[in-house]
Amino acid sequence: MTDWGLLEPGATDPTGTDDDAVLTAMVDVERALLRVWGSELDEFLDAQADALDAASLDRTALVEGVARDAVPLVALVPALRAQLERAGLPADRLHLGATSQDVLDTALMLISRDALQATRASLVEAGGRLAALADAERRSPRIGRTIARHGEASTLGVLAAGWLDGLASAVDAIDALTFPVQFGGAVGTGTAADVAAGRPGAADTVRAGLAAELGLADPGRAWHAERTPVLAIASATAAVVAALGRIAGDVTLLSREELGEVRVSGGGGSSAMPHKRNPVDAVAITAAAVEAPGLLQIIASAAIAGDERSVGRWHAEWASHRRLVRLARSASNATVRLFAGLEFARDRAEQILASSGATGERPERAALIAASERIVDRAIARFVTASEGSTRP
Amino acid sequence: MTDWGLLEPGATDPTGTDDDAVLTAMVDVERALLRVWGSELDEFLDAQADALDAASLDRTALVEGVARDAVPLVALVPALRAQLERAGLPADRLHLGATSQDVLDTALMLISRDALQATRASLVEAGGRLAALADAERRSPRIGRTIARHGEASTLGVLAAGWLDGLASAVDAIDALTFPVQFGGAVGTGTAADVAAGRPGAADTVRAGLAAELGLADPGRAWHAERTPVLAIASATAAVVAALGRIAGDVTLLSREELGEVRVSGGGGSSAMPHKRNPVDAVAITAAAVEAPGLLQIIASAAIAGDERSVGRWHAEWASHRRLVRLARSASNATVRLFAGLEFARDRAEQILASSGATGERPERAALIAASERIVDRAIARFVTASEGSTRP
Amino acid sequence: MTDWGLLEPGATDPTGTDDDAVLTAMVDVERALLRVWGSELDEFLDAQADALDAASLDRTALVEGVARDAVPLVALVPALRAQLERAGLPADRLHLGATSQDVLDTALMLISRDALQATRASLVEAGGRLAALADAERRSPRIGRTIARHGEASTLGVLAAGWLDGLASAVDAIDALTFPVQFGGAVGTGTAADVAAGRPGAADTVRAGLAAELGLADPGRAWHAERTPVLAIASATAAVVAALGRIAGDVTLLSREELGEVRVSGGGGSSAMPHKRNPVDAVAITAAAVEAPGLLQIIASAAIAGDERSVGRWHAEWASHRRLVRLARSASNATVRLFAGLEFARDRAEQILASSGATGERPERAALIAASERIVDRAIARFVTASEGSTRP
Amino acid sequence: MTDWGLLEPGATDPTGTDDDAVLTAMVDVERALLRVWGSELDEFLDAQADALDAASLDRTALVEGVARDAVPLVALVPALRAQLERAGLPADRLHLGATSQDVLDTALMLISRDALQATRASLVEAGGRLAALADAERRSPRIGRTIARHGEASTLGVLAAGWLDGLASAVDAIDALTFPVQFGGAVGTGTAADVAAGRPGAADTVRAGLAAELGLADPGRAWHAERTPVLAIASATAAVVAALGRIAGDVTLLSREELGEVRVSGGGGSSAMPHKRNPVDAVAITAAAVEAPGLLQIIASAAIAGDERSVGRWHAEWASHRRLVRLARSASNATVRLFAGLEFARDRAEQILASSGATGERPERAALIAASERIVDRAIARFVTASEGSTRP
Repeated sequence: MTDWGLLEPGATDPTGTDDDAVLTAMVDVERALLRVWGSELDEFLDAQADALDAASLDRTALVEGVARDAVPLVALVPALRAQLERAGLPADRLHLGATSQDVLDTALMLISRDALQATRASLVEAGGRLAALADAERRSPRIGRTIARHGEASTLGVLAAGWLDGLASAVDAIDALTFPVQFGGAVGTGTAADVAAGRPGAADTVRAGLAAELGLADPGRAWHAERTPVLAIASATAAVVAALGRIAGDVTLLSREELGEVRVSGGGGSSAMPHKRNPVDAVAITAAAVEAPGLLQIIASAAIAGDERSVGRWHAEWASHRRLVRLARSASNATVRLFAGLEFARDRAEQILASSGATGERPERAALIAASERIVDRAIARFVTASEGSTRP
Repeated sequence: MTDWGLLEPGATDPTGTDDDAVLTAMVDVERALLRVWGSELDEFLDAQADALDAASLDRTALVEGVARDAVPLVALVPALRAQLERAGLPADRLHLGATSQDVLDTALMLISRDALQATRASLVEAGGRLAALADAERRSPRIGRTIARHGEASTLGVLAAGWLDGLASAVDAIDALTFPVQFGGAVGTGTAADVAAGRPGAADTVRAGLAAELGLADPGRAWHAERTPVLAIASATAAVVAALGRIAGDVTLLSREELGEVRVSGGGGSSAMPHKRNPVDAVAITAAAVEAPGLLQIIASAAIAGDERSVGRWHAEWASHRRLVRLARSASNATVRLFAGLEFARDRAEQILASSGATGERPERAALIAASERIVDRAIARFVTASEGSTRP
Repeated sequence: MTDWGLLEPGATDPTGTDDDAVLTAMVDVERALLRVWGSELDEFLDAQADALDAASLDRTALVEGVARDAVPLVALVPALRAQLERAGLPADRLHLGATSQDVLDTALMLISRDALQATRASLVEAGGRLAALADAERRSPRIGRTIARHGEASTLGVLAAGWLDGLASAVDAIDALTFPVQFGGAVGTGTAADVAAGRPGAADTVRAGLAAELGLADPGRAWHAERTPVLAIASATAAVVAALGRIAGDVTLLSREELGEVRVSGGGGSSAMPHKRNPVDAVAITAAAVEAPGLLQIIASAAIAGDERSVGRWHAEWASHRRLVRLARSASNATVRLFAGLEFARDRAEQILASSGATGERPERAALIAASERIVDRAIARFVTASEGSTRP
Repeated sequence: MTDWGLLEPGATDPTGTDDDAVLTAMVDVERALLRVWGSELDEFLDAQADALDAASLDRTALVEGVARDAVPLVALVPALRAQLERAGLPADRLHLGATSQDVLDTALMLISRDALQATRASLVEAGGRLAALADAERRSPRIGRTIARHGEASTLGVLAAGWLDGLASAVDAIDALTFPVQFGGAVGTGTAADVAAGRPGAADTVRAGLAAELGLADPGRAWHAERTPVLAIASATAAVVAALGRIAGDVTLLSREELGEVRVSGGGGSSAMPHKRNPVDAVAITAAAVEAPGLLQIIASAAIAGDERSVGRWHAEWASHRRLVRLARSASNATVRLFAGLEFARDRAEQILASSGATGERPERAALIAASERIVDRAIARFVTASEGSTRP
């Protein structure tokens, strides 16, 4: 089986969430574990850590292993052991005290962390451009629309400020996350590590060391069956995609020929209508936004684990967890492109407002502009504050 | 239409999430808004606030209004105005500067906050009992099970500690929430409020005052179409229910006749088998856990709003938002009952362990018990810390 | 707990899916079961069947029973027995050979069947009006839109025909359903019924008789844990709502002030903007369409039952199953109202087409009109054929 | 991006649902379209059809095209045209009258049809083995379990018959499907085809010819925005996976060491516990069953399309549609393996029954066995009838 991106609109993926990236992350975890054990046992294990090599592993054998064992580690660990043996190094410290779930959960945390940090960078970049747009349009009136009908007057600046609030919320959601290391051994007690080290509490030291080595958080516990850390990441990721999806929906509508308050540049082609320019960035973002809620649901269902490691529920997490962060990465990338080419059509917005029959609470224009100024200023300030936060491990 | 609980296993609901509670909360919002305007306008509006009465409103007329207008406020506001007029009070300050969404969103935030604070109290109560169980069983060995098979030795204390970690995560998830007030007027700019007050910035003052009056957070903005605050609540609620659902699943399994490591007292009857005692608390929790992920998905889909108020997406939030917090309330109540009657069967656990063929990394018992002590202590400490946090508005 | 419709936009519900209706259906099942046993045992049980009365049952006691037993039957059966005893009738034949799930599953099938037959009637009514619109607009050109951009020329008739195809698909989906009776006794073997009748195979006779009495299908088996019949109903219901939701989305867009190809009459009010007329039917349909996929997911998750009756999964079905058919009922009702007031704006459609810059494969107008004629004719024919089908029990 | 199966437990995929398979199917559609046009235009286009070659297409360029155009066809059609030109053949008939969606929708129908026919074959194979088990165990008593507690006596044959009913329902669900061809051109009217052929109705002929050529159904219409055909396939696929997931859950439970009513052979290894044998087939099936409902939800949400081709919603279908049929394929494969190695432990089942305290309606054993015989016979007969059905195009 090989999926290389044929069915992934907008799935630009520079930071890596594909199977090679996950495999590399798993080997990184085993490597870090060797280094940590070197310190715990006061042995020199760096040569062994250095000898591990994800690139040269036999993918076909690994896939056969996944089919046979329902987890990639049972085939991976012997393959890595063979690498050490070929290098003339002892292999007995490899995977010491660990279980499959320790390595795979931790590897997926590395993938998530990196993808969401890249997502965050894209959100900040897109928001910078959007803040400038909001600032420029703070005195540009338009009609506000509620329940698909003209409501009362607003401004293009308020529209952009509302989108910017979404980006700030998305950044905040990422920044509230932690990415915990997993280490508990066969049934989560860490006793194999304690026995291997010959002292009580060694498992805690190894777990903390692994977290430090990999730049992840030390959760102070194993969470093999307590899956709220994964659900938190999925929830934040879905919130990011939802915020972007809402913006893409507004842009899609407002850039229609009949509305024209917004213009998007570039655009993809059509196989039947060469003259058409499709809003491909909005397409990619919207597709992600339609898909993400279902993936979030899968993670939430899988979180109802069982035993000390669940049957199937843990396994069902992998693909959806990875796909969620991939979608966030792609959708935030597409948002950068979207705003890079987006322009507001001030005159058209004013024209629609003039033609609208809205009355009622419509304020004097002066009051509106004053309100718009405050809303735009506050949204920019909130976004800047969010941007200056930082991701935690 | 009247649903009175026929299809709600375990839906004990003392704090109120039903339609009467929501209606009362909407009237509370209108009442608070009157008081805040009294302060802003330097008028005495307390008499009007006091004259509003949710209990005497005509429910049938309100339901007809919802069917006609797709939102309850269009019928509610005139009904409240009529109450004022019947009391000989001016009604022109009622609902001033507000839109339907301001009142309904804020009312649902009140319902959510109260239901989740009650949920939190139940989690703390259940966790207190569970911590005592974990403490008592820290030296009671059992077999750990992974992928539905006997794995390595663990303890009943570690099992209880893992459940307690779930409760601590659930409490943390609630404590990370904010419950923001909504106030933006027709299209979110607050200009009607500014005009009514005769000064720029009045809408901000009213919003902040409303938050203070109701004990909610002031988000510094309107979020009519930026729905991440609702999604955050839904995500946290689903995390609570998932943590409880995982515990209920373990209890269900371990209390089966063939396993018997756990005993649950009480239990519901059967219409066909009078001798049976069904684990009804686990049933109610599991039912909530099966349902919650789908409701979370609905909220995440609805979050992709549009315009200054969305068509249908906002409306789809109501039932699912309310039901999620109802399920959290019910499931946490059921968890209190579950742990009140739960006992571990130490001898049976030891017997199963003795009969298990597990070998491999099984540690010396001394190492296991030492690890168990640390894990139990840490889980209790983590739970106590979580319990001492507090919900924010 | 009492929910009376405050949060249900468009939830007109004449045929009954509320708790009273479900309770009545449960009593209907017990009544039918008495009659069938009368025939099987050659006893006169009609007086007992007639003496059962849903209306006078104590709802509060039933809700307490649901909370205690996690199923309503454990409290209901003694309450019905007491009715018989008060009437001086023997009660030993009541609920004979049945288990809670037999009665509740069958009752929900009655509710589903009736709600979906009413839904079907609404679909046929709405489709009749829509077919007339399609027929009238078969020669009215408009621009077709793909990926939110002007594409090539089409007609208003083709647009209406596409919606009509959705209605025909929805009718077909309902007509493909069966609504099976449930009867298997405690663990699905029917042996209690066989023993009570004193002959092998009596359970089969009772099950078939119950189906005939209630107008349901005889599935030839018990399906306590094989939940594909419920999933099939949920899938069809979601398909109905999706077809309607797609139409409502098109109508919402095309009736916006800037597009104006479609006009909808009536409309709901606004609490902040008295001048506004909101498209409330489209709101109600869209809200249902946003909600239904999540409910379908819940039913699909719950279908992974277990044992001879599952823990919680069965219980999680009830609310979502009922709500899905309620949404279908409401959404189809709203669709009747939507089309009753919908008009196409021929001139505006022609004007937009003229202004569009589309070129490429745009056909000669004659070819377009010829194609439109065929498409409209075929859609009407397909809809008529679908309408002439009939629901099976 | 390359995913090669690292995170796919049990994803054996012989019939092909990967990107290469989809690409091949798209080229098959273009090839069939050429042949059909050859017939319609009375030209010899077979040489052109034969010259198209999926294998030699530049995947990297296609992926760049998907990123740029949000659909693979805009890059694919010129690449195929270049193949024709390199072969010295005219390319003007390629993709004639078609739009991207025609080709991609049809290609995914080919993928679905083949995957579900293979799934059906696996279901029939697994069911054959299961029917033999049911037959052999029709007189082997066991305890039935409801709400996770011992209920009344049943038999292993009834247990197997219940699983077999699930397989029969799954086969029926597949057999009720149609796999329609898509052909409508730019906005679904088929006028480009009519113009190209120089006669009205040519688009209908081409669509029918394409269906015949590819072995798909002719739906008599374009369904670019009326997505119930895709939702029907997703629903049936989810029903298949749910039926299998329920069986896998029962097997997982009943094969636990403490229950032991069922034994599964083989099993996967563990990286931490070399002695363990994990029930990997049940893992793979359960993982699919946890994932499928969320994917079904995505398809149901995406079905609420819009315009003549929707923004993002159509695009969101691709990955989930493909993944659903992949999961069905994998899970049915795993079910064949599961039953090939499954044995019932008659003595253990009898022993548990003897130890159970169940009383109440427990029948005489003779009545139970008689009932079991009928239930087993009927389930086998139902399965045989289902097996003898056949998939429609």
